[in-house]
Amino acid sequence: MRLRNKPWAVKLVDEHPESVLQDPNPEIKIDWEKRFEDFSRPLEVEIGSGKGQFITTLAQKHPDRNYIAIELQTTAAGIILRTKLEKKLDNLQILRGDAISIASFFAENSVDVLYLNFSDPWPKTRHEKRRLTYKDFLKNYETILKPTGHLEFKTDNSGLFSYSLMSLNNYGMMFDFVSVDLHHESEEIVAKNVETEYEHKFASKGNPIYALHAHFN
Amino acid sequence: MRLRNKPWAVKLVDEHPESVLQDPNPEIKIDWEKRFEDFSRPLEVEIGSGKGQFITTLAQKHPDRNYIAIELQTTAAGIILRTKLEKKLDNLQILRGDAISIASFFAENSVDVLYLNFSDPWPKTRHEKRRLTYKDFLKNYETILKPTGHLEFKTDNSGLFSYSLMSLNNYGMMFDFVSVDLHHESEEIVAKNVETEYEHKFASKGNPIYALHAHFN
Ligand SMILES: C[S@@+](CC[C@H](N)C(=O)[O-])C[C@H]1O[C@@H](n2cnc3c(N)ncnc32)[C@H](O)[C@@H]1O
Ligand SMILES: C[S@@+](CC[C@H](N)C(=O)[O-])C[C@H]1O[C@@H](n2cnc3c(N)ncnc32)[C@H](O)[C@@H]1O
Repeated sequence: MRLRNKPWAVKLVDEHPESVLQDPNPEIKIDWEKRFEDFSRPLEVEIGSGKGQFITTLAQKHPDRNYIAIELQTTAAGIILRTKLEKKLDNLQILRGDAISIASFFAENSVDVLYLNFSDPWPKTRHEKRRLTYKDFLKNYETILKPTGHLEFKTDNSGLFSYSLMSLNNYGMMFDFVSVDLHHESEEIVAKNVETEYEHKFASKGNPIYALHAHFN
Repeated sequence: MRLRNKPWAVKLVDEHPESVLQDPNPEIKIDWEKRFEDFSRPLEVEIGSGKGQFITTLAQKHPDRNYIAIELQTTAAGIILRTKLEKKLDNLQILRGDAISIASFFAENSVDVLYLNFSDPWPKTRHEKRRLTYKDFLKNYETILKPTGHLEFKTDNSGLFSYSLMSLNNYGMMFDFVSVDLHHESEEIVAKNVETEYEHKFASKGNPIYALHAHFN
């Protein structure tokens, strides 16, 4: 999804360096400690947050956890930021940058949960390496996740889901939860689910939503 | 699926002990060598063949491979047998019995491919152990499959498919192919697919067909 450029969003992002880190230099360690009230809390990171419905909902629900939204587009980052300011989500930080450099954003063994929601599918085989579940990305996730940490992935894209099941399995990851029809699981599972914008849109059309939770061995 | 009892089928099965082995004694090694023209050929086994559309199609397509249909119901076994006789499928044998004893049906490292097609879903948690992808079954499959062998599973049941992805992954199996929408994969994949009765019925209704190929490590 490419959002139309919104000047107000770009301006808002520029005015709030304390909330949005832009294109951090991969050579310099990011001082997250300084950016959160209490950095000893569990840390959860979403890659490709879009307009941020998912991560802002989580941040509001769990004030005792820290959240970081990684998002490539400045306009999307601005929309997340607006919600953060409106709802006073002090436990949410935004990183406006490319997840390709994720291993430089976080210390080893520092992240509790990594969320990938409705990631770009890159359906062409020659673009496999760009998929956020490609093995090189998994290697980075393995490095930054705590040994007790895990990954949660949702998509409506059947090709990306099939690919990701293969990729994570072949990497040696252990599956903790799989659903090929998340919105028709037990009431308990459905009630716990926090929707993203894409999820809401595609589920409303009747598309199945796929989900996979897994950890490294 | 419970088929209505068809007396002709029961009679036909009883008349053809050279083609149908019934409830073999688990204490006695089955002499498959005697039952096939050339037992050195690749051996492929389907568990729960139903009326046998899948395995009789394969047996006809590949006269250079041996096939065994395992099926619990005598009526279903009789329907498979009728096709076998009509089409003169000398490379197909039928085992009328319960796959729970599969480890006693075959020598260790003797099977090339195991097919599970539209297995009974047993959706209740307390029936988990009856699912043909439960870990105790996997253990048996591991024993009888050759080191180069693999398993191929298809279903339209989302609960059973999600469960099986978890179960095979957690057992340590490696995925070779996954699809959450088999009938909408590339032309090449769709053309190679051999449909079962259930598959035909559910795909016609527009249900997605799930597929998983995997091998033991
Ligand atoms: C299809 S949208 C999904 C948005 C949101 N997660 C949802 O489920 O509604 C994918 C988002 O990921 C972002 N994105 C794609 N690749 C990225 C990357 N390498 N690093 C950071 N963000 C990325 C895109 O800019 C876009 O906002
Ligand atoms: C739902 S039907 C599917 C039939 C066929 N494979 C298809 O796809 O059309 C499941 C079949 O498996 C057989 N079956 C179930 N459990 C079995 C077991 N433990 N051993 C052998 N056959 C079994 C049933 O009798 C039934 O014919």
